[in-house]
Order: sequence, then structure tokens, then C-alpha cells
Amino acid sequence: MKVLIAMDSFKGSISSEDGSRAIALGIRDVYSDAEIIALPLADGGEGTVEALVKATGGKSIKKEVTGPLKEKIDAVYGILGDKKTAVIEVAAACGLPLVPSDKRNPAVATTYGVGELIRDAIDKGCREFVIGLGGSATNDAGVGMLQALGFIFLNSYNEEVGLGGQELSNIRKIDLSSVIPELKDCTFKVACDVNNPLYGPKGAAHIFGPQKGATAEMIKELDKGLENFAQIVLQELGRDIQNIVGAGAAGGLGAAFAGFLHAHLQSGIELVLEIIEMEQNMQGVDFVITGEGKMDGQTSMGKAPLGVAQLAKKHEIPVLAMAGCITEETAILNELGITSYFSIVNAPMTLEEAMDSTVTSENLRTTTKQIFRLIQSVK
Amino acid sequence: MKVLIAMDSFKGSISSEDGSRAIALGIRDVYSDAEIIALPLADGGEGTVEALVKATGGKSIKKEVTGPLKEKIDAVYGILGDKKTAVIEVAAACGLPLVPSDKRNPAVATTYGVGELIRDAIDKGCREFVIGLGGSATNDAGVGMLQALGFIFLNSYNEEVGLGGQELSNIRKIDLSSVIPELKDCTFKVACDVNNPLYGPKGAAHIFGPQKGATAEMIKELDKGLENFAQIVLQELGRDIQNIVGAGAAGGLGAAFAGFLHAHLQSGIELVLEIIEMEQNMQGVDFVITGEGKMDGQTSMGKAPLGVAQLAKKHEIPVLAMAGCITEETAILNELGITSYFSIVNAPMTLEEAMDSTVTSENLRTTTKQIFRLIQSVK
Repeated sequence: MKVLIAMDSFKGSISSEDGSRAIALGIRDVYSDAEIIALPLADGGEGTVEALVKATGGKSIKKEVTGPLKEKIDAVYGILGDKKTAVIEVAAACGLPLVPSDKRNPAVATTYGVGELIRDAIDKGCREFVIGLGGSATNDAGVGMLQALGFIFLNSYNEEVGLGGQELSNIRKIDLSSVIPELKDCTFKVACDVNNPLYGPKGAAHIFGPQKGATAEMIKELDKGLENFAQIVLQELGRDIQNIVGAGAAGGLGAAFAGFLHAHLQSGIELVLEIIEMEQNMQGVDFVITGEGKMDGQTSMGKAPLGVAQLAKKHEIPVLAMAGCITEETAILNELGITSYFSIVNAPMTLEEAMDSTVTSENLRTTTKQIFRLIQSVK
Repeated sequence: MKVLIAMDSFKGSISSEDGSRAIALGIRDVYSDAEIIALPLADGGEGTVEALVKATGGKSIKKEVTGPLKEKIDAVYGILGDKKTAVIEVAAACGLPLVPSDKRNPAVATTYGVGELIRDAIDKGCREFVIGLGGSATNDAGVGMLQALGFIFLNSYNEEVGLGGQELSNIRKIDLSSVIPELKDCTFKVACDVNNPLYGPKGAAHIFGPQKGATAEMIKELDKGLENFAQIVLQELGRDIQNIVGAGAAGGLGAAFAGFLHAHLQSGIELVLEIIEMEQNMQGVDFVITGEGKMDGQTSMGKAPLGVAQLAKKHEIPVLAMAGCITEETAILNELGITSYFSIVNAPMTLEEAMDSTVTSENLRTTTKQIFRLIQSVK
């Protein structure tokens, strides 16, 4: 019996690691000599750095950088077990949670700190980058990040522009002479789960501006700034950053990564599964176990387990999913490659009771044991 | 794929039949041509008559009889599909729920109505009887029932004694000359899940008297009455009814059935399984599905499913159990013959939400479907 466990965390209850441990116990309750591989899962969003660092035996780095409102903050990123790949969630340096609600202002917020994290990783020898977009407080098209990497953006007086989305409309020229030389040896893989263009009605300012604290008037100005920036980039560098799928992600950071750093934008879960070599790890596996706190087929939740299921389906390996909560639109989970799914909740109880880490852990073990007892009875 | 469904009801939510129907749908979602046998389950207690009538294609009979306090009541019993076996729950004629709390009085309550039900069934041609003990409001050692069948109990003035537990101590002689003649052709199987003797510290009056409204003083009197009755029976008929296991069930009705009607007292679930021919129905079955609203290994709950599991284990058929609530002492269920058990609760929710009949029905179908998808992937 060979089993691959690829669990997401049960958010607010237990980590992917603890969940995997409970499941492994449940399997061994039935197949004491089972071969078990456990890969912590993430979807490119919150928790991805931690999951990848753990999965590859890497380490976490804490670095003081410029925060979204230019204050100094401690940001954490990861260097994977290969020692040359850095994993950075942009939210660590320019995330919305770093800014109190009443101070949110995408006209001034900057992605400068993201560039500083990249520089730090370059200084530590990294040349491969895995970037998680999403959750930014900014709308600066990644100009702040590029500035930190040596790109110079000039206004009509040939002076360098300042930080924040409000400066985009002033940019007239781009000076590449001071870009840090190591950048040309770097490759960027970017996890991006939105497909918005840079500007316009479906662009960064209009779609994501409001949640970042932009007023209706500010959105118009920010959108104009993004449009101006796209035109300058087209004119100066000959690159169309408006129409890159996902250009509008993280206040335009998508455009900066794709247009300036030759990044490949792909879905977060796809990228994560690639990095942890999920498909290679499925070789010879009898069952794949996945799941997370809440699973359905409609929302972003369940994305990582479904990504695992798709890969397993390709290799015709049965996929068993466990979750604390399985919503009504369940039939779709089967269609999307999950052989069978089970709730681990063993009785009516409150959400608080169900999320107790001991309860979750015991229920995962018990449900796993029952599933493998059934498998044993059929085999 | 041949499956035997033997579900108890989910009390307060859905019947055994509706639960079985939902499970059958879940099986057919995966194995559209599955051969499915559904036998409604009961444990000899509440709901047993209904379950047996349904399982055998019998019918329910309503009959006006003497209630526990001598008032006229409508009692229901069943005649099985064979048209010669009557199923009677004694509580239908002398049950505690028939008496308002403030009128409960085992000194006067009588089992006379039970005897009337037996006579009615005899008149309708029944000669086999299945009796469910339990839940009686009486402590008359079944004398009322016997009186209705023609037994005459005389006091020291050679006068027939009246009804109720208080009359037991007056009995001096038993006159068998008027017993209805058909009785000698009748056989009685009695479901009895207690093992109390007739009188003494563990007898009917001491153990079950208080819940029937007896005061401490009354309990002493009732116990003396039971003891006197046992002595008279020993002296007159040469039968020791005190030491029959279960003699003290239902206020001494156990003693009357065993001592006067040659009844075989056995566990309720064992008797039910025998009547619905559970074991014969297991021939050639791939899986047995059982369960009920709440399952554990410790209490009376789960008895019927565990009885099913024991039989299936004997025939090495995997048993899948589903319940709304599975308590913490779960490991014992596996030891008692249940291959795998699953809660059908698909998310944290209140007991009220979980007990909604639509929710229960959908969750049974979904859980069954997931189980059989797993089986299909392994087979």
C-alpha cells in the first residue's frame, strides 16, 4: 500500500503537516507497513511560502524592507531546499493587512519592498524566483519594485518620479542603465489567479481599487496613470503590457513581472504542484489523499485539492478527499477528479468545536482508518 | 453488486424505509444495476411492530382494550405477512406514555389490555406471538393479562381478585378451568432486554417502580405482592417464576409469559433478526449497510446495527455503517463487526439542522455514493 498525502491546511484549525500526520496514523492503523509520502499543499495564496519551504526542506528569511506606506517592516520570504530558488509572496512586503483600514491609499502605497526582497535573495545567491501575487495594498504597476531593482522612471523634467500609484501619470521615460546586472540571469515564475488587464473597466484600479481604499475619483486618476505607464512602456521598450493576461493582478505587479522581468504567469496551484514535483511523486501510488477545511467546486476554496485531483486522474489513481465542511454543490467534486469525498465531522457540532485542533486531528485519523478498512475489505 | 440495507430509523428525522430509499439511490448512482434488498430494522423496542409489519408485508390492527387505568383505549398491534403471527408491544396496551405523570400508580395499573390484544389475535387466527416487553406502567406480574385469557386468581375467601399490583398479595389460589382453550396451541417469543428477577432488591418493584410513580412505601408493598405471587405459583403450579432471567421485565410480565405461556425470552434484536430472516437474506450479498441516528458501542443505541454486524461478520460480509452522530467510543464498533463507519453530517451544524429529514436523506445518499465510488475504484 503506497499512499500520497497532499493536504492543504485546515485554516484556523491545523496545519497541512499536522493533518498529514493524523492521516498517516489512520492509514497505519490498517496497513501498518504502508509507504506514505506527505507533501504539504498550497494554492499560491496565503501559506504558500511556508508550504513550499517545508516541502523542499528550505528555510525562511526575515528581512527589513520598505512597507506599503514607506514605513520599515519585517517581511518573510523563503529559500527552497535547492538553495537557489526564492519564494516571495508580494503581500509580505506590500500587503493590505499591513495597512490599517483608515490609512489604505493606493495612490501612495508602493511595491518597493518587493524589489528589496528580490535583491536580498539575489545577494544570497538565488536566481530562480517563485512569486505569489495577490492581496497587495498597491496600484503602482510594480514601479516601486522595479525602482528597487535599479529601473529609473523619469518625468517630463527628466527627474526620477517618487513612489505610489499617483506617480504613474508623470512617467515619460525609462532608464535601464542602472538595473542590477544579476537580474538578467534571473527567471521568475509568478502565481497569478486573476486575468484582468492592466487598465480600463476590468483593469487593476477599477476592479481592485475599491477594496484598497480608493475613492471613485482616485480610481479614475489611478486608471489614467496605468494607461499612461502602459503607453510609455510600449513606446520606450516596445512591450505591450496592457494585454498580458493577469497584468492587472496585485495593482499591476503582474504587468511589471511579465513586461520587465520576463516572468511566466500561471495559476498558483499549477505552479505549486510543479515545484513540489507532485506528478513525479505520484508514481506507483495506490491512493492520493487530499482535502482542506472547506471544500466545494465553486469558490477558490478547494482549488489546491482539485489541482491534485486533476493530476491523479491523469494517472488513473483514485483520489480520496477529506474536509471539515463539504458544501451542497458536491457532485462537481466527483466530476473534477475526486473519486470519493468525506466530511470528517462525526456529529452535529458548532464550527468552533469542529475547528478544535484535537478534534480535527482525531476525526481525520478516524475517517482515514474507516476508509482504509473499507479498502482492505474490498482488496 | 448485491447489497443488503438493514437500517434502523434515524429517530426524530427519517424512518428506516426513507433512509433505505436514500441509500439505495446512492448505490444506484454508482452501480445502476445493483441488486438491493432493504429490510427495516428494529431492536424490539419502540417501532418494532411497524418495522416487522413492513418487512413481512403484514398489516396493523387497531383494537379497543382496557388501558392501564381501566379506561378504554385504542391499541395497535401487527399481524405479519404469514397471517398467523401477531406482534404485540405491551406498551400499546399498558404503556407508561398512556398515563399522565400525575396519575401514574403501579398499585392499580393493569396489563389486562395485553391479554385482550392476545385474545383478539387468537380470534383472528393467530397462534404465533412475538411480544415486545418494556415501557409498561404496571407492576402486576402480568396477572391482568392472564385474567383476560381466562386464568382466575382467587383470594383467601375464594373470590376473584381485582386488577393492579396491589392485589398480588391477596392471591391464594389459581384456577385454570376457564383458560381459553386456543392458548395451548399458541407459542410466544418474547423480546426482553433486561435480566431482572421478579422480586427482591433487583426485582421489578425496586428497580422499575420509581419511574412508574411508586413511592418508597408502595415499592415495599408491591415487592411483597410479587413475592407472594411467586410462592403461590410455585405451590399451585410447581413453577419457579422468580428466577427466570427477565421475569421482572415490564412489571413482572416477563414472569407471566415465561411461567404461564411457556414463552421463550430472548434479546429484542436477536428476535427481530430471526423474524425478518436477516441471516437468510445475507446469502450472496457483497455488502451490508446498516446504521441509525446515533451510534456507539456502549449504550442501547446502535444495538440493532451491531446485531446485524455480528451476523454479517459470521458470513464474512463487509458491513458499512452510517449514522448522524458517532460518539467518541468508536473503536469498539470496528471490534463488534462493523468494517467501516461514517458520519453523514457534511459540515458543522446544529442537531436541529442535521435532523431535518431532507438533510438526512441527502446526506445518506451522498455518503453512500462516495463509499460506492471508492469501492468501484478498488474493485
